[in-house]
Amino acid sequence: MQIINNSSANQLRLFIEKIERLEEEKSELMENIREVFSEAKAVGFDPKVMKQLIKLRKMKHEEAVEQEELLDIYRAALGMIPSGQFTTDDLPPHTGESDNDAEAA
Amino acid sequence: MQIINNSSANQLRLFIEKIERLEEEKSELMENIREVFSEAKAVGFDPKVMKQLIKLRKMKHEEAVEQEELLDIYRAALGMIPSGQFTTDDLPPHTGESDNDAEAA
Amino acid sequence: MQIINNSSANQLRLFIEKIERLEEEKSELMENIREVFSEAKAVGFDPKVMKQLIKLRKMKHEEAVEQEELLDIYRAALGMIPSGQFTTDDLPPHTGESDNDAEAA
Amino acid sequence: MQIINNSSANQLRLFIEKIERLEEEKSELMENIREVFSEAKAVGFDPKVMKQLIKLRKMKHEEAVEQEELLDIYRAALGMIPSGQFTTDDLPPHTGESDNDAEAA
Repeated sequence: MQIINNSSANQLRLFIEKIERLEEEKSELMENIREVFSEAKAVGFDPKVMKQLIKLRKMKHEEAVEQEELLDIYRAALGMIPSGQFTTDDLPPHTGESDNDAEAA
Repeated sequence: MQIINNSSANQLRLFIEKIERLEEEKSELMENIREVFSEAKAVGFDPKVMKQLIKLRKMKHEEAVEQEELLDIYRAALGMIPSGQFTTDDLPPHTGESDNDAEAA
Repeated sequence: MQIINNSSANQLRLFIEKIERLEEEKSELMENIREVFSEAKAVGFDPKVMKQLIKLRKMKHEEAVEQEELLDIYRAALGMIPSGQFTTDDLPPHTGESDNDAEAA
Repeated sequence: MQIINNSSANQLRLFIEKIERLEEEKSELMENIREVFSEAKAVGFDPKVMKQLIKLRKMKHEEAVEQEELLDIYRAALGMIPSGQFTTDDLPPHTGESDNDAEAA
């Protein structure tokens, strides 16, 4: 049988109560975040687009621009947007594998 | 085109910056929680079992006892624990459906 | 004590084993999805952008276009992109609340 | 500008469509799992406890028994269950740190 003295029982309690307090604070914060989104929505802003904006603001500018360009290139390659601006020559460098790699995937 | 004056652009910024601050606080809290668990682990406590303990502490005592009893009944019914304490008569009340309901599921 | 006959113990087993099989199939599918992404990555495609593309393909075209336009309007309002194309007049209709709503949020 | 020939556009399509098919299958499986749980519930079984049972069945028997014992030891240490069976001597081996570690956490 593992041997531990009483102080560990007390120490366990302190750890558990500390985590419970932090979890409680976290739930309150998450509730606050939901409230701000619903207030923004009430005055006409779109929470889904606000979340995309926040995600972009976390990214380095170049990274965001690069990702956006690549998304447009992929969309053009799949005919989702007019490929006027792009030619499929703008897709990422291809290592020469044939299509059956994708089919075999 | 939607019409909104400059003050809404400012209002959007305030909403976004408020959410970003709250998200920042939330990440710090989650980091603190991780730290408490790793400190507890360092002195010999098991974080996985601590999480079960915290989950139980959130439940009403009767609910926790009932769930535990039902789990033992189910385990005995599947031969996972000696069914000495229980007979399959202790499984939840059965509405008389035959087995093919489960098979057909 | 709840009363249930043996057939329910068997029925419980059938339900549990059915769920376990389905969960097993689900893990295999998730593994397959990961493999396709890593194969695409190996020939030069960007999984993160592929996921955005898949998300867009799930949306109705108009919804995707609208969301994209709104994101650009919000970005211009926060000075993240040159607001040449847009004026802050293009932000969503404003209900006249002043800024302190956002501050009070 | 990155240079890639047409076949990559086709390869991208194959990868995307393959992932979409797998995602579709995954959603169907998740729907099937939900159905089995609701059928089990309809004949008197408790889905929450069934999930705990499935979790236990994934664990090695010794690991499950050990975790259960430790949970009871922790519960007794926090006065959640009569500590008759256990003395706080049964808490995991303690490295002698005093309580202020927990307080300082």
